[in-house]
Amino acid sequence: MNIDMIRAAAQRIDGHARRTPILSSPFLDDIAGRRVFVKAECLQHTGSFKFRGAWSAVSMLPPDQIKAGVIAFSSGNHAQGIALAAQKHGAPAVIIMPSNAPAIKIANTRALGAEVVLYDRSTEDRDEIGDRLAAERGLTLIKPFDEPLVIAGQGTCGLEIAQELGNLSAEVAVCCGGGGLTSGVAMALAADAPNMRVRPVEPVGFDDATRSLISGKIERNAQLDGSLCDAIVTPQPGNLTFPIMQEYCGPGLAVTDDECLRAMGLAFARLKIVIEPGGVAALAAALYHPDAFTGDAVVAIATGGNVDPAIFARALETLS
Amino acid sequence: MNIDMIRAAAQRIDGHARRTPILSSPFLDDIAGRRVFVKAECLQHTGSFKFRGAWSAVSMLPPDQIKAGVIAFSSGNHAQGIALAAQKHGAPAVIIMPSNAPAIKIANTRALGAEVVLYDRSTEDRDEIGDRLAAERGLTLIKPFDEPLVIAGQGTCGLEIAQELGNLSAEVAVCCGGGGLTSGVAMALAADAPNMRVRPVEPVGFDDATRSLISGKIERNAQLDGSLCDAIVTPQPGNLTFPIMQEYCGPGLAVTDDECLRAMGLAFARLKIVIEPGGVAALAAALYHPDAFTGDAVVAIATGGNVDPAIFARALETLS
Repeated sequence: MNIDMIRAAAQRIDGHARRTPILSSPFLDDIAGRRVFVKAECLQHTGSFKFRGAWSAVSMLPPDQIKAGVIAFSSGNHAQGIALAAQKHGAPAVIIMPSNAPAIKIANTRALGAEVVLYDRSTEDRDEIGDRLAAERGLTLIKPFDEPLVIAGQGTCGLEIAQELGNLSAEVAVCCGGGGLTSGVAMALAADAPNMRVRPVEPVGFDDATRSLISGKIERNAQLDGSLCDAIVTPQPGNLTFPIMQEYCGPGLAVTDDECLRAMGLAFARLKIVIEPGGVAALAAALYHPDAFTGDAVVAIATGGNVDPAIFARALETLS
Repeated sequence: MNIDMIRAAAQRIDGHARRTPILSSPFLDDIAGRRVFVKAECLQHTGSFKFRGAWSAVSMLPPDQIKAGVIAFSSGNHAQGIALAAQKHGAPAVIIMPSNAPAIKIANTRALGAEVVLYDRSTEDRDEIGDRLAAERGLTLIKPFDEPLVIAGQGTCGLEIAQELGNLSAEVAVCCGGGGLTSGVAMALAADAPNMRVRPVEPVGFDDATRSLISGKIERNAQLDGSLCDAIVTPQPGNLTFPIMQEYCGPGLAVTDDECLRAMGLAFARLKIVIEPGGVAALAAALYHPDAFTGDAVVAIATGGNVDPAIFARALETLS
């Protein structure tokens, strides 16, 4: 991984991915005690930043691989990003999704033209299913985060932040799952906005990246279920993403489900955007953990995602 | 009013108002049966397009009038736009609001530094209150729509649509209250995107502009209460805005409260944006009245606004 790969990805996504707006509100600044900027990746195609990495990867496939198609494992956001990027390139897409993934994410992935193969997380081995399908059909696997072209695509979000806010002395809070976005943005900012430093944000109890950064080696989460922020719960940081995070990121932070629901409510009321719990973790950190940050401003990447209306209703209740 | 005034306003708001993104979703295209583009003015500062006109007007005041301050009548969105524009110019702002205006809009207006004067719509004469305060303090009145500088500011939204989508043969659906946005955008498009035509959208039962365009003279609404779309209910089109609408707009359309709630739900699910009922009327028309439009695409301006969480919860229910 290097910055030139991110710059090349930026050229490939130009005109295909949206350049998402950076929003702010004086009401949020008041809560955080400093300027808060929100990079609204929820407004990206398919509703999350994942489309950047998906387009970055699919657009590099040679014609024969496009024709044969792609395959991905995902519980939702990567699935939709790959489905749309593949559809726009005329590539068949197979997405292996757990049968208990949110119904809306499964439906959306299908509606974007992908073939969805469901598996039972407790009894079936998704890698076995994926390997078999890939071999049978000659599909190209696109990993959700531990893949250089995907990291490069997510890093384009960092280039845009550097272009618009690069003169700020600021920390950039990033919702961190496997670390594709976190590492890509960190590398982009190190090159183009050295005054900015990335801070990974995770759910309390699922803070594998935070602990890995402390111990200096890859740590695993003790469990994978039980967080509202399911979109950013992964077993451990990636083998490619972790060394990049080690080199460029500041310490990690952890936020609670309740803080995420409150931040969702404020994003609704003050920014007029819709973000799922896992996608609002960075904003929650900026609002409710201001002492954990340094600098004049925090840029929080709102990574997006599909929100269950029932969970959104709980976020609305925090406003009353 | 002329196009040069809109171009001059665009220069004044540059760097102060947000250039709002134009969003889309294949799921919305499927419902409407054609491409649907949504100009997301809900992401404008203060949450609605009104900030454009407010900045346009306040930025033209000479220093002595800035120092004395401004006054406005509004139940909410214009109030907040004026409050923020005045605050940024260092001008005191007095906003006369009905005491039954949404509490969140009153609170926001105060939080943006304005002095809010409440009056009882049924027993007090707001003009009398406004005239007295303006005379006592030398305040400059900024009308919500029937004011050339305000129309020019709202028209900048049309210039942006022309720049990004001007090569489309499309109709542009605009939520229409007094007609400031509708007339400004219509004039901008007539100059810069003659393939595009504005269609005013109003609530069923409060379709004064639609009826005025049919009869060729200004018609009034029979009542002013009873619509969820209160943000776009006005007694009648403006004396300045109506002739512009007559010259440039196609026929008006009317949408129901229920259609607006469903469109709010889809904007939540598919575009990840939050829009009040009166701000989503144009999108509702594009989605649920496709036969009323011609052309390859509809551009719907989502005008924004503060949404009562209880009303938003009703919109979420339409998704299940």
